[in-house]
Amino acid sequence: MIRFNCDYSEGAHEKVLEKIAATNMEQTEGYGRDGYSMQAKELIKKLCGRTDADVHFLVGGTQTNLTVISAGLRPYQGVIAARTGHINIHETGAVEACGHKVLALSSEDGKITAGQVEDYCRAHMEDSDREHTVQPKMVYISQSTELGTIYRKEELEELAGVCRKNGLFLFMDGARLGYALAASDNTLALEDLGRLCDVFYIGGTKVGALFGEAVVITNPFLKEDFRYMIKQKGGMLAKGRLLGLQFLALLEDGLYMKISRHADGLAEELREAFHKAGVPFLVENTTNQLFPILPDDILEKWKEKYSFSYQQRVDQEHSAVRFCTSWATKKEDVEQLVGDIEKIYAK
Amino acid sequence: MIRFNCDYSEGAHEKVLEKIAATNMEQTEGYGRDGYSMQAKELIKKLCGRTDADVHFLVGGTQTNLTVISAGLRPYQGVIAARTGHINIHETGAVEACGHKVLALSSEDGKITAGQVEDYCRAHMEDSDREHTVQPKMVYISQSTELGTIYRKEELEELAGVCRKNGLFLFMDGARLGYALAASDNTLALEDLGRLCDVFYIGGTKVGALFGEAVVITNPFLKEDFRYMIKQKGGMLAKGRLLGLQFLALLEDGLYMKISRHADGLAEELREAFHKAGVPFLVENTTNQLFPILPDDILEKWKEKYSFSYQQRVDQEHSAVRFCTSWATKKEDVEQLVGDIEKIYAK
Amino acid sequence: MIRFNCDYSEGAHEKVLEKIAATNMEQTEGYGRDGYSMQAKELIKKLCGRTDADVHFLVGGTQTNLTVISAGLRPYQGVIAARTGHINIHETGAVEACGHKVLALSSEDGKITAGQVEDYCRAHMEDSDREHTVQPKMVYISQSTELGTIYRKEELEELAGVCRKNGLFLFMDGARLGYALAASDNTLALEDLGRLCDVFYIGGTKVGALFGEAVVITNPFLKEDFRYMIKQKGGMLAKGRLLGLQFLALLEDGLYMKISRHADGLAEELREAFHKAGVPFLVENTTNQLFPILPDDILEKWKEKYSFSYQQRVDQEHSAVRFCTSWATKKEDVEQLVGDIEKIYAK
Amino acid sequence: MIRFNCDYSEGAHEKVLEKIAATNMEQTEGYGRDGYSMQAKELIKKLCGRTDADVHFLVGGTQTNLTVISAGLRPYQGVIAARTGHINIHETGAVEACGHKVLALSSEDGKITAGQVEDYCRAHMEDSDREHTVQPKMVYISQSTELGTIYRKEELEELAGVCRKNGLFLFMDGARLGYALAASDNTLALEDLGRLCDVFYIGGTKVGALFGEAVVITNPFLKEDFRYMIKQKGGMLAKGRLLGLQFLALLEDGLYMKISRHADGLAEELREAFHKAGVPFLVENTTNQLFPILPDDILEKWKEKYSFSYQQRVDQEHSAVRFCTSWATKKEDVEQLVGDIEKIYAK
Repeated sequence: MIRFNCDYSEGAHEKVLEKIAATNMEQTEGYGRDGYSMQAKELIKKLCGRTDADVHFLVGGTQTNLTVISAGLRPYQGVIAARTGHINIHETGAVEACGHKVLALSSEDGKITAGQVEDYCRAHMEDSDREHTVQPKMVYISQSTELGTIYRKEELEELAGVCRKNGLFLFMDGARLGYALAASDNTLALEDLGRLCDVFYIGGTKVGALFGEAVVITNPFLKEDFRYMIKQKGGMLAKGRLLGLQFLALLEDGLYMKISRHADGLAEELREAFHKAGVPFLVENTTNQLFPILPDDILEKWKEKYSFSYQQRVDQEHSAVRFCTSWATKKEDVEQLVGDIEKIYAK
Repeated sequence: MIRFNCDYSEGAHEKVLEKIAATNMEQTEGYGRDGYSMQAKELIKKLCGRTDADVHFLVGGTQTNLTVISAGLRPYQGVIAARTGHINIHETGAVEACGHKVLALSSEDGKITAGQVEDYCRAHMEDSDREHTVQPKMVYISQSTELGTIYRKEELEELAGVCRKNGLFLFMDGARLGYALAASDNTLALEDLGRLCDVFYIGGTKVGALFGEAVVITNPFLKEDFRYMIKQKGGMLAKGRLLGLQFLALLEDGLYMKISRHADGLAEELREAFHKAGVPFLVENTTNQLFPILPDDILEKWKEKYSFSYQQRVDQEHSAVRFCTSWATKKEDVEQLVGDIEKIYAK
Repeated sequence: MIRFNCDYSEGAHEKVLEKIAATNMEQTEGYGRDGYSMQAKELIKKLCGRTDADVHFLVGGTQTNLTVISAGLRPYQGVIAARTGHINIHETGAVEACGHKVLALSSEDGKITAGQVEDYCRAHMEDSDREHTVQPKMVYISQSTELGTIYRKEELEELAGVCRKNGLFLFMDGARLGYALAASDNTLALEDLGRLCDVFYIGGTKVGALFGEAVVITNPFLKEDFRYMIKQKGGMLAKGRLLGLQFLALLEDGLYMKISRHADGLAEELREAFHKAGVPFLVENTTNQLFPILPDDILEKWKEKYSFSYQQRVDQEHSAVRFCTSWATKKEDVEQLVGDIEKIYAK
Repeated sequence: MIRFNCDYSEGAHEKVLEKIAATNMEQTEGYGRDGYSMQAKELIKKLCGRTDADVHFLVGGTQTNLTVISAGLRPYQGVIAARTGHINIHETGAVEACGHKVLALSSEDGKITAGQVEDYCRAHMEDSDREHTVQPKMVYISQSTELGTIYRKEELEELAGVCRKNGLFLFMDGARLGYALAASDNTLALEDLGRLCDVFYIGGTKVGALFGEAVVITNPFLKEDFRYMIKQKGGMLAKGRLLGLQFLALLEDGLYMKISRHADGLAEELREAFHKAGVPFLVENTTNQLFPILPDDILEKWKEKYSFSYQQRVDQEHSAVRFCTSWATKKEDVEQLVGDIEKIYAK
């Protein structure tokens, strides 16, 4: 069984493990106040061009999302997101459990536009009974999105502009940020995120770490007392250095981008094979997730050899599924799948 | 600087790291549904004498506490705990953030008694306006407690009896369970916990793992849909096998007890040295935490060599502090401290 | 200015006020344990054909909705509702503030169907990662709906059937129940609600009372400890008899139905006038709310004489607005508006 | 049966009812935006000497407390209160249900001191791990307190000073404010509250209204978006004018103070009778609540004639109970009780 169902099937890049092992018996202060975490934070601030930012490490994505969103909202405020956004459909209502409504906007490709946000805010402000509705205060986007698409620089600039105009925080979920930054058509650098987002994170779990997300906060309001928030929500790792060490390993020599390019490159090979075979996609993208629409009988056959994840039914005989590559995907596994794509469509 | 301030200053026992490294590039299913997690769960159920139990792995203690407590309570119900309990004073109101009041009982030694719980429940039931007060529904205890003391078998049996009689869940925080089980005067086995508690956990973070707590649920009500709770509260690790692997390493050959005895043994050496030197304790105990009451000037001098944690002021010239040993504490470090204890009190 | 914008512009029916005044200086027990509240509860149980039900009085609709929904759900569970449902769009996220997601289903007429609920539940159960999504556990409907439509007996029976099959609670918001029961094409009696709903309420605020909603709970799980829920959520009125007295006044002689018929009858006069004048409706219905689609210039002119509420833009020159009648609407006010409808469309 | 158990056994002062009846069929805007509410708000601002304040009307005390506290705190912040405070023991954990811990301070007489608050804040700031504990951000006091005592002007000034110094909001629960203002030894005027409190309320429910509390907010942060908070928490009355009208009736001619003096005067008669009879008090005070310590056999006998509320056991043969007078208490009822006090102690 070759797993293409997600990008977290293996452990961590060997450099990550080495760093953990090499420092294992050192004694350090707990809760992220150790020297390694400090180093990693400084490095991240430099990479993002924001030495004034605050950086915090959390263990996973849902936890990061709920902690950041809770930190930014008063009780009657909500967070705007694409209907397909992870916080809206794949976190068991974690945001609601913290008391806040997700204000879901329609989206075909996983992205939302500045125009949609502007319309939502205007409608709210024009409502004379607006205190009967949830007040929008934050915009949540994912880069890359849950459908593998990416925001372009001008799109992010427009979103940031609308957010500033309307007093909203712009929050970018970067669980798959590496795969977005490494995409062939990417136009955004970490410095752009540092400049445009009030808060975003650099995902480790899906990009070479055992676990871990590095939250970068540029907005002063969100910085205040953020460690209280982390602790209360159960996200403060006792041995916090484990997070600092992993991000050091990933970021100090450009490993993060290198392994992200590896994943995107292999995804491109699969994408081409599907294209050649005439397989349509639910959505076009350039990152490590592919959403081909395939006949159910082929999917049934492939199940024995490959794991992939089910996305949605398209018609009576076809379904959209998801194939992912990752930092750990082996070239030979991709080649085998390419062969199967070619074989079947050769008929 | 030698760290005695807590029991999570180092990484993990080498066997734990080895197991993670050895399986690193294997592909497994995510979110704790992999084979290693399954194996570890089976092992834990056997060790607790409860093959009918459910076992779940979470990353840390606060997260585990808030998830278990949320799972057990309806909105108007609260959890009884010692005033010194971790959930009451060291989790930034995590339980309250989930909507529930901690019903704090007075305690000198970190423990609460069956009589206290019984009195609390009786007073609630006798109150004709009881719907104006929080309904007690769970009892939270720690083993060992935040003051290093342990419950004896008969005490736990009485608590369990009162809980059953009054329809309360009995929940044991086992963040330091190893150090309790390994204590020289311990009378409780894992099977007793499986028999008496509705839910408890075997702590990994402080006892040889990088991180991780193994929750054992014996009560059917608490079992239901517990994975939803974990996911919502941000505690579901994508690479869940990391938790399964660590508990396999710790539990399959008795390593957990062996390293716990190591810590308790070294703590005993320190305890004896303090006793000999005539140093009183804030509370007497037999586990890996010690709370000597020392003159402030000695503490000031020791700060350069040792880290320890401040507990409370006792009088104008004395403070109670905490020294911890752990699975990782080195014998030579303990000997050095013993030497300093003897030296100073020789005067 | 004649107000047609809502059905709560006046105080209370005179019989309601009389009853409050007549008993004003009597001393009674607080918090709804007085004799008048007891009488009213018995009467309501009889009218609903459920002497085994529990009845509680709350002050307003949002409070009632959030209290009932909180009482029924565990933290990871959500409530299914029409996208137009009051809890989804007009309660400032009150349900989310209690920790629960509103699972919104599309609806053109304010109603949802048994088929939609069944599909939602099936999709949830077929999802192998369902613990990553909110578990549906309750269905919220309004009778009449926010668009003035009503459920027919067979529709409610089907919804109840799907709810029972899938283990969901069926909750009916009856803020405007009188106007539904009095509708010319109504097929549901209070006994049907008692038989089919797990919980519902008989709205007083919009149907002749100063304020107040009478919650009828038939499901044993929801009954348990409901008074704790009311108190915690701030809904327990110290002088609870004020609620009992009002419902006695409204229900002991059929006043509730009589005044509801009054409102529906006047609405019918307006509806006919609009129909005759060729005015289309956003949605057709038979209760006290009308949603005509009118030219913006006429609306502009009418604003000086009438208050009505804005619903939505339909095209560049037309908007849908809402006109309400109520128990208190005067025949002469309706006649004046009818005159204006005729006049304008005479052109 | 004569009720002395609480101060909400009757309806409302006749002037309150008259005002509601006189305006009953007027049409007004909903949700507190009517002219009567506006008038009442202006009047209250003037009486408090704060024309810059915001005034809002809510239905009851628990609702008011939870709404104000939620409005003021970020998720990890808590509210300091006396252990005897209503929010700590008689609101079914309403504050915790909004996510916040009540930080309870010991108190013998229902009051807390500036020194206690200062110590709490200092201890928090000196804790190097303070993000592991709840951050104090608000102080809740009651005037009069749950034990009938009152804060003197210098005490309130000191509390306000400590709050400002430490960045805490000072919140006064005025459910029984009238009885405090009318006390023979009162030193505080409404203007003092307007000057010293960030937010407080003038209680109506227990002082002549059917229901209702008038919240006065002087702190700009707390003012922001407060109507969203009221709506979300279920406290926005559709027919909001009912609240405005009642406060107009109570405040426009000094009725509030007149009826408060009535209650305090009758309480004084009872107090003197108890004193003469040698009955000790649990706590001495000058307002409408009395806490005599009486032999159980007398209490048993009195139960047939009077209702009073049980406070606590004092010794094997004596209990402290509570007797309340109110705006509605009849002189002849007090005289009868005075007679019984004299009779029994004559023996």
